[in-house]
Amino acid sequence: MTTDFARTRSYFELPEGVAYLDGNSLGPLPKAVTGTLDTTLRKEWGRMAIGGWNRAGWMEMPARLGDRIGALIGAAPGTVTLGDTLSIKVYQALSAAIQMRPGRRKILSDSGNFPSDLYMAQGLIDALDRDLELVVVDPEDVRDHLSEDVATLMLTEVDYRTGRRHDMAALTEAAHADGIVTIWDLAHSAGALPVDVAGCKTEFAVGCTYKYLNSGPGGPAFIYARPDIADGIRPALAGWLGHDAPFAFEPDYRPAPGIARMRVGTPPILQMAALDAALDVWDEVDMDDLRARALELGDRLIDGVAAACPELVLATPREPARRGSQVSFRHPEGYAIMQALIARGVVGDFRAPDILRFGITPLYIGEGEIDRAVEILSDIMARKSYDRPEFRTRNAVT
Amino acid sequence: MTTDFARTRSYFELPEGVAYLDGNSLGPLPKAVTGTLDTTLRKEWGRMAIGGWNRAGWMEMPARLGDRIGALIGAAPGTVTLGDTLSIKVYQALSAAIQMRPGRRKILSDSGNFPSDLYMAQGLIDALDRDLELVVVDPEDVRDHLSEDVATLMLTEVDYRTGRRHDMAALTEAAHADGIVTIWDLAHSAGALPVDVAGCKTEFAVGCTYKYLNSGPGGPAFIYARPDIADGIRPALAGWLGHDAPFAFEPDYRPAPGIARMRVGTPPILQMAALDAALDVWDEVDMDDLRARALELGDRLIDGVAAACPELVLATPREPARRGSQVSFRHPEGYAIMQALIARGVVGDFRAPDILRFGITPLYIGEGEIDRAVEILSDIMARKSYDRPEFRTRNAVT
Repeated sequence: MTTDFARTRSYFELPEGVAYLDGNSLGPLPKAVTGTLDTTLRKEWGRMAIGGWNRAGWMEMPARLGDRIGALIGAAPGTVTLGDTLSIKVYQALSAAIQMRPGRRKILSDSGNFPSDLYMAQGLIDALDRDLELVVVDPEDVRDHLSEDVATLMLTEVDYRTGRRHDMAALTEAAHADGIVTIWDLAHSAGALPVDVAGCKTEFAVGCTYKYLNSGPGGPAFIYARPDIADGIRPALAGWLGHDAPFAFEPDYRPAPGIARMRVGTPPILQMAALDAALDVWDEVDMDDLRARALELGDRLIDGVAAACPELVLATPREPARRGSQVSFRHPEGYAIMQALIARGVVGDFRAPDILRFGITPLYIGEGEIDRAVEILSDIMARKSYDRPEFRTRNAVT
Repeated sequence: MTTDFARTRSYFELPEGVAYLDGNSLGPLPKAVTGTLDTTLRKEWGRMAIGGWNRAGWMEMPARLGDRIGALIGAAPGTVTLGDTLSIKVYQALSAAIQMRPGRRKILSDSGNFPSDLYMAQGLIDALDRDLELVVVDPEDVRDHLSEDVATLMLTEVDYRTGRRHDMAALTEAAHADGIVTIWDLAHSAGALPVDVAGCKTEFAVGCTYKYLNSGPGGPAFIYARPDIADGIRPALAGWLGHDAPFAFEPDYRPAPGIARMRVGTPPILQMAALDAALDVWDEVDMDDLRARALELGDRLIDGVAAACPELVLATPREPARRGSQVSFRHPEGYAIMQALIARGVVGDFRAPDILRFGITPLYIGEGEIDRAVEILSDIMARKSYDRPEFRTRNAVT
């Protein structure tokens, strides 16, 4: 193992006295971000103002950072761009995929997909008002539903609730055998485990940057399109920064070559600057090391909870290859248990209806946090100390 | 006049030695932003991490800041939300408007609209693949093209090139007489002049915040929907944060009541925090004062240039009511002239094919900047000192 995880940990500002097992929801603050933002504000926006678009390289950030993310997901330079939110990127991929298979009437997804991906498909179908249907099946039944009337298969590689991981390469290959366009949502994959978008030949991949890539709340999303199809995409969201010559201000839309046509409006430079600083840590990380370490820590949590809290039911596949980088448990009192944990400094999160999630992020957590989580969870369960009204009060964001 | 413009000026960090007449493209850095961002990073993201969504009020920022912007454009609380980019907000309004008038086949706009608005309409029409047409007419011909086969009239109130201002109230009323849904782009209006979206009864208004509202590069966009129609909108971009219960993670999309359904994905909190700080200045500004002052400064620029540089042709209407808060001139060598001006510390910008634009932003510019611009422009024209190869080299962003 060549990655020094004690060193990577030193790059993060971790909430004091907390075992932060929620980096799968929002990564913690990389220390470098504060200085970078200060530079972006004072030296760039403050001193250059409009000149920052050229002189500070703002306009090129979606492409430059796209390449940095591409390196983490097996995408060649020039095939990833950044901007907007993940839901918008899903919409772009979906509408392009439908246009690529005009005779087909099904969008296939599964019940383990993140709801916003399903909602975006529903909104698109409603807007198109054509004979299109979203078919949502159980994750294990996806393969059986591949057929020649499916236009696109849209899946999230790692289930946001259970952490179950699809076999991206195998499903993509099976889908392609039926001429289906694939869209992979890598929200819980990018920065979490090795991904090879080019190798598996998927047409599209999308993801967010504020989870395992630590870009901060509301950081920009990314989209990849396979180079051989990118120039054929007709963007539904035909924004000026995806135009071939945005500053010619032509009356008609002409898409830029390649992935740049997936840009829409003015990029969020403050969020991009935070992401840029956050990505530096990856220069010192070997993704295979990261994966091995995450599985080791995940096993430690699974084994610890199994021994100490038998009433919590493991929701994540036990087999390493079949899980992502989180470990989840089910319990009918999941919400209250998680609030009790958070009150004692173990931060995971809850997902309806009954899932306790723990993000395993070796960049900044280790055995200490895992052991502390097990110990406190075990104490809470033994004393039933979650059984209090204040732990049942729902927050706006839960 | 109750607004103290010397005081508002002191709130901005202006590029040193520069007459900054480009706030209509990117507002300068409000001094308060630096401290606010530092708090958002260190005290919120750093200390609270995921807890920031509840404890720091991040999740409510689109609604809370929407209300702050609403107060500047005549919109009632709860009728404006924030997020994404202006192009995305245009798309949302357009697709909703089309669904509201299913029997009609035209989207009417004008050649003074910002190209991205036209591109988004083209992309939407292409994706819908129905009998829909974008009709683009000259600005003065809009009224003659209103008819009962127009679904929606989409205009930018103030022309980004010439600064010509439409009569928003009159055109909206005329459009409504034909049952047309109106969409006003307020990119060059919000924070530039008094706007009364509720009073003119437009169904939709959209705008950006990085121009006259000084939120910084890539700041979030806003969208207003008239309260009586908001609950009937079927969002094409059906993102989870526009769901009635995003954290219930239901399989089917159910839009939130009112304008909240125009939210899509996770809001960009760093950009939102910058906007929040940038909006503070408006607590001390009377919009009528601002308008009077901007017209006075605009007249000073128009008169000065007319006297000193007769070869520059005024592109902006002379009549105050017919112009926004910028003054533009035409010259075949416009690009090189603007580069020569910028090299001497007078920052405006150029818009193809031949427009020199100067933003008139009384929050932080006054007679000094106007007089300096006239003096240097006059010198450049007299000596033809723009006639150099280095001033003809095009930048990525021009």
